[in-house]
Formats: sequence, structure tokens, C-alpha cells
Amino acid sequence: MSGRFSEKDVQEEQMHFSNVVTAFQQYAQYSLAANNRRRKDMYTLSQADRALLDAIGYKKKLQEVDTAILANADFLNRIVADPEIFGHDLSAGEYSAEDDPNEDSSRHQKSWNSLDPPSRGDDNPCSHGHSHYGHTHSHGHNLQTSDPRRPHGQGKYKPTDFDMDKLRSTLKQFVRDWSEDGKSERDLCYEPMKRALEEHFEGQERGKLRVLVPGAGLGRLAYDVATLGFSCQGNEFSHYMLLSSHLILNKTDSIGEHTIYPYIHSFSNIPSKAAMLRPVKIPDVRPSDIPPGTDFSLVAGDFEEIYGDDVADESESHAGRWDAVLTCFFIDTAKNAVNYLRIIHRILAPGGVWINLGPLLWHFENNDTGDPSIELDLEEVRELARKIGFQLSDERTIETSYTSNDQSMLGYIYKAAFWKATKAS
Amino acid sequence: MSGRFSEKDVQEEQMHFSNVVTAFQQYAQYSLAANNRRRKDMYTLSQADRALLDAIGYKKKLQEVDTAILANADFLNRIVADPEIFGHDLSAGEYSAEDDPNEDSSRHQKSWNSLDPPSRGDDNPCSHGHSHYGHTHSHGHNLQTSDPRRPHGQGKYKPTDFDMDKLRSTLKQFVRDWSEDGKSERDLCYEPMKRALEEHFEGQERGKLRVLVPGAGLGRLAYDVATLGFSCQGNEFSHYMLLSSHLILNKTDSIGEHTIYPYIHSFSNIPSKAAMLRPVKIPDVRPSDIPPGTDFSLVAGDFEEIYGDDVADESESHAGRWDAVLTCFFIDTAKNAVNYLRIIHRILAPGGVWINLGPLLWHFENNDTGDPSIELDLEEVRELARKIGFQLSDERTIETSYTSNDQSMLGYIYKAAFWKATKAS
Repeated sequence: MSGRFSEKDVQEEQMHFSNVVTAFQQYAQYSLAANNRRRKDMYTLSQADRALLDAIGYKKKLQEVDTAILANADFLNRIVADPEIFGHDLSAGEYSAEDDPNEDSSRHQKSWNSLDPPSRGDDNPCSHGHSHYGHTHSHGHNLQTSDPRRPHGQGKYKPTDFDMDKLRSTLKQFVRDWSEDGKSERDLCYEPMKRALEEHFEGQERGKLRVLVPGAGLGRLAYDVATLGFSCQGNEFSHYMLLSSHLILNKTDSIGEHTIYPYIHSFSNIPSKAAMLRPVKIPDVRPSDIPPGTDFSLVAGDFEEIYGDDVADESESHAGRWDAVLTCFFIDTAKNAVNYLRIIHRILAPGGVWINLGPLLWHFENNDTGDPSIELDLEEVRELARKIGFQLSDERTIETSYTSNDQSMLGYIYKAAFWKATKAS
Repeated sequence: MSGRFSEKDVQEEQMHFSNVVTAFQQYAQYSLAANNRRRKDMYTLSQADRALLDAIGYKKKLQEVDTAILANADFLNRIVADPEIFGHDLSAGEYSAEDDPNEDSSRHQKSWNSLDPPSRGDDNPCSHGHSHYGHTHSHGHNLQTSDPRRPHGQGKYKPTDFDMDKLRSTLKQFVRDWSEDGKSERDLCYEPMKRALEEHFEGQERGKLRVLVPGAGLGRLAYDVATLGFSCQGNEFSHYMLLSSHLILNKTDSIGEHTIYPYIHSFSNIPSKAAMLRPVKIPDVRPSDIPPGTDFSLVAGDFEEIYGDDVADESESHAGRWDAVLTCFFIDTAKNAVNYLRIIHRILAPGGVWINLGPLLWHFENNDTGDPSIELDLEEVRELARKIGFQLSDERTIETSYTSNDQSMLGYIYKAAFWKATKAS
């Protein structure tokens, strides 16, 4: 499979990974500067206004936010403390395209059983795509239009606002997937999907049933499905997510081991200082408590490239190999949803089931990177699914937030579409 | 007052106005191109995928969106059909800074009784600021960071994404303020404010009570307050809003005279074609039905400059001249809310009342124009109000959307803060 990737692909991939690691490392510097801007702005005011702001505690709050930024930085630095395990050759973020023209392209393959560090040469078919929009579900369409892939020279990469937004989203993803605070969101989203999966395969031996979770993010849904006894593979594409899930799944020993402050980055729509500065403990479970023998893996790379079956070797084909595909806030990451749906249909085994939950926030709408984008409405997606050969059932709407700050004065509520789909033809 | 403005200020102001008019005129071209991108993207797909999209009606939908864009363009062109009435010297959008070095700065003053075209030399003190963030309440913080004020040469101004976002927001503001569809939002926001106003002045002669509505937008709250019999002045700063409210208040004769399609600009989170393409009729009332003798005016310009009392002539001072100030989704437009609150406190008459409703989406947070921004949380704003000399009462939270597409799969809900405040000191 690695034959499909040119040296240039591999180098771009390496560079992108290096840039993401640098973004993690530069979080403190960037965020402290953003907060310090507020301090400077105070000094543009009259002395009387400054005194009033002092009196209501604004200046003191800025100090407390600095402290919280440093705590977040400590956590983020832990995530990238040992990035070499991902098979990338990093020189403290100084990697440049010129460094290693003879890069072994076998490094391009990586997947690992979670709870173990990834290693090269794993049997699972996998690859990294070379187009790197993270799959976090962001409200900020515009952010997508920055291209984080810009080449850089020998100098240290300077993270962009786009990178930092990804980092801040990553912190909120931790809340969603691995904190007690995220339980209500998980209950709304993951529970109906898990129930539908259990019902569909009622009475069957779960360990023999292969479940795929594309867009696995920080891995909680895939982990939960594995914990239910199914053989489960998550697939994820964003380096932000992959680095982060590795910390949680493989390097975290106890409940509440990490403390993060996910709500300190915007000062808008905040009811109180306590709401903004509230800490969140990570994780809510010990991932290593997963029963021995559980088949749970995460595969890094682009869904279409990995499962799209552009392979010469029949034995590597995914066609008909999956008993269930669970897509949660995923299908709108497609440039062309027709292809996503065709792939899901093709890889499902006879009697298999596709369970979907999510909105239609088309991630590539308004991109300025020249990527095509097909943006269907919900009726069209359902009609498309039927035409591709699915039979839909249990169609309903689930109202849910997504990595939402439930104490914000602005709430986002998705009317997410749920359905089960089986192969009709 | 015009002595405060330099020739450069006046020229920048003219240029900005000209650019906004150009944005209205360029809407069709820009929006058709954006939609045509979708058509082109279809041709990057395989023939089989294209055929499927055809079969589910995607291509036909793109044509219908084109038709709706042209209908919107017709409406927007009506708004700027006669911009000279605003006292600006336009040459079909070709104005440039070099055109008129001897520009009469008295043109900088404008205000008008609504229901009449504005004229120069009106008695009301007023001015245009030269910093032009519109006051529409946008969810997209990032958009704010584009600077629409960039100078241009002799060539036609090319509207930016920022300008076009303002236009799309303007269409949604029409729904909120002047359509039957906006009634539920208005009932949630304007009704409690009007009730509080009526209660505060129960039994008093309304015509003698002067009510100010800063951030008046398209003018509905101010219009409603005037209709209740109060003497009401709206204040607005955005050219998008000012041009648009002029059409509704002064050039619209019948209910449902205009038809717009506010929901066609994003293809994300759309449940169905019908939801996206649904027309909205404007207006829901005949603004000219306002009772004769009603004192209702709109003043164009920056709130701090107009009401901040930086005047030598005591007779022009606003201090103590207003019986009520109604701020709806307004206080977070401040760079420095301390100054907003001081001004509101200063201009209120003894026994006067400040009625507030809104979130705290600080409009200047993350700006990249070098403007200072003080971003308080709700507890701090309330504490600040008390320190400035207000006594707060009737404090509560009102859950409401703001120019929301209620059929979208993504809903925004504000937990807006409501309060009444009187001068305690």
C-alpha cells in the first residue's frame, strides 16, 4: 500500500505532524500573549476606568487565567512528550522538508492496538492521508479556510490561529469523551448508537462481530463499543486527535489524573469567573481497565484511502468485512458524501448495519484550498442512501450539544439525524 | 460638532459608505459565483456520482438557489437605489479618496425623522464614527477580524467575504425585525423590555417621556416603543442597517411588499430543500401606519461619540435628558463597557430607567485592527453597573435565539441577561 505514496507525500506528512507537535508546544506562549493583550488594553483606558476594573476583580482574573493556561500547557506538553513513538522523525519540531530525502516510506504505515504504543509494520492496513483537516466538529467554518499545510523552511514553525483553534477544540473533546462533565453529551449521542448496535446483533457472539468507527476522535465511542465485547476499530485522521487519544489510552493510569481548563480561551458569554475557570478532571474511567483479550484498535489515516479499497491485493480489501459501521458526527466531513456512503455500503457484510448520528455541517463548504465540496440536505442524504442500496429504519432526530460549554450564555444545539441502515441491495 | 472631524475622517466615511453600497450592488455576482462553485465541484466527480446527485435533485436545487439569489439581489438593489439621500456623494460606487478634497464636512452630520428622508442640517446632534463594525450580532467572531476599511484606488471596490457576511446578516435582521416569522424572537426579546418600560412609567404621559434605543438595527424595537406613545429615538451605526431601515420605514407601502430568501447562503445543516428555499415576506406591518404626531427618529452614528457628551456647548449635552435607555443585544458592542455604562448613567434623567437584554458576545474580542477590548463576565458587568451608580432589579435570564434559522439542524440559543436599572446615585 505504501507504494501509493510519493516521497513528497511522505515529507508533507512528516512536516504536518511536526507542525502539530510544535502547536502543542507553543500553546502557552500563544495563549499567554493573547491574555496579555487584555492587560495591555486596560492601560489604554483612563485611570478612573482602570480603577473600576481593578475594583471588580478583572485584573486579578487575568492572572488566574494565566495560571490556568500554564496548567493546560503542562497537559498538552505531556501529550507530545514522546512523539517519536508515532514513527515520525522529529528534531524538536525543527524538521524541514530538506532533512531526509531518503525517508523510508514504510513509516507511512501506522496503526496500533490501543493500550500499546504504535509500531511500524503492524498488520492492519492503514495509511495517513496527506490532506489534514482535523475531524473535530467545529462551529467555526471560517477557520477551516486557513491551510495549516504551508511549507516552512529551517526555522521553527509558527503555529497559526487555525492550529490554536484545533488545540482548544482538542481540550473540549477531552471533556466530551473522557470526563464526568461530558457524560450527558455522551449519553445523548453514544448510548442510542450502542443500544441500536446491541439490538441489531442480539444473541450473537460479539467478539466475532467487527465494528468500525470512522472519525473516532479521542476514541470513547470505539472504546465503549469494545467494552461491550465487540471487536472494534476506530479510524481517525487528525494528528491532534491521534496524539491526544494515545495519551489517554496508553499513558494514563488513574481516574482524574489530568486537570484541564477548557473554558478560559474566550471571554465572551461567560456568566462568572467561576464558570470560566472551572477545572475538568480527565479521565472519568481507567482505559486500562478494559477486559483482557478485548479487540480494540485505532487506525490512523484517511477513511476514504484506507477503506476505499483502492488495492490490487484482494486480501487487503475491506469489502464485506465489517459487521457494523458507526458514524457519529462524521458523514459531514466528506468532500463528496456519495463516496463515503458507497464505501460504507461496500465494506458492510451481509446482514451488517450502518448506524448514524450527526448534523450536516459540511466541513469543506467555503474552503479556500480548492477542494471540491458537495453539500446535501438531510432529505437528499437519506434519498442518496436509499439509491446506494441502504434500507433506512429508526429515523429520528436527537437534540444534542457537541463539546459545548454548558455554562456559556450561548448554547449550540444540534438537531442531529439518527438512523439505522441495512444493505437492501 | 463637525469640528471634531478632519477632512480625512470625512473622506474615510464617504469611502466606507460607498463600499457598502457597492457590496449591496455586488451581492448577485458574488453569490452566484459561490453557488456556481458547487456546480463546478460536481464536475470533479465520477459520472456515476454525478448521475446519482442528478437523480436526487441536487443540480436542480442549485438552479433554484440561483433564482432565489436574483430575488434577494432585486431587494438589496432597491435598498441602495437612491443612496444620495444619505448626503453622500457617490459616483456609482466609483468614489475614491482623491475625488473631492474640498468635501463639505457638514455632510458628516445626519439624522432624520424616520418616515422622512434624512436631510443635512437636522437639529438632532449626530455624527458618523469612522470605525465601522456593524452592530449586527454575529456568531462568527472571525469575520470581525477582516477590516472592511481598506483604502482603494480609482477602481471599483471589490466586496470582501466580510462585506457579504454583513449583507447576509442584514437579510436575517429583516426576518427578525420586520416579518411574521420573526415574531417569536421579537416576543421573547422586545416584549419584556416594552412591558418593563410601561410599568416603570405607569400613569405618566408617554409623549413627554424620551426613550433612547442604542444599537437600533433595523428599528423595530424603537418603532414599537414609539407606537406605544413614547417619544423614541433609535441610534445606529452600521451603514448596512441604516440603508436597510430607511427602505422599510420610508419607502415601503404595504405588508408583505418584499420577498426575500434569507436561508440560501449556507448548504450546511439544512433539513430539506423546502426549508432552505422558503421565502420570507417583509414587512409584517405598515410602518407608515404609525399614528400621526408620533415622535420617532433614528440617529446615525457612534453611540459614544453622539451621547458621550464631548461637547463645548452645554445645550448640546445629553446629560440627564433621557427618561429611558433600552439596550437590546447592545452592550457587548463596546470596546470598553465601562464607558458605555457611564454614558447611560449620565444621560438618564432622575427617575429614569435603563432596561437591558442581551448576552456578552464581546464584538471586539480577537479583533486584529488594534482596537482595545475589555471583556467582562456577567457578574462583573452587574458589579460594574452598581459601582457606577445603578440599582439593578428584575434580574433574570431570557432564553432566546437571535436572527436564527429555526429550521436549521444547528440552533443557537442565548441565555440573555435581563435587568432594569435605576440611578441610585
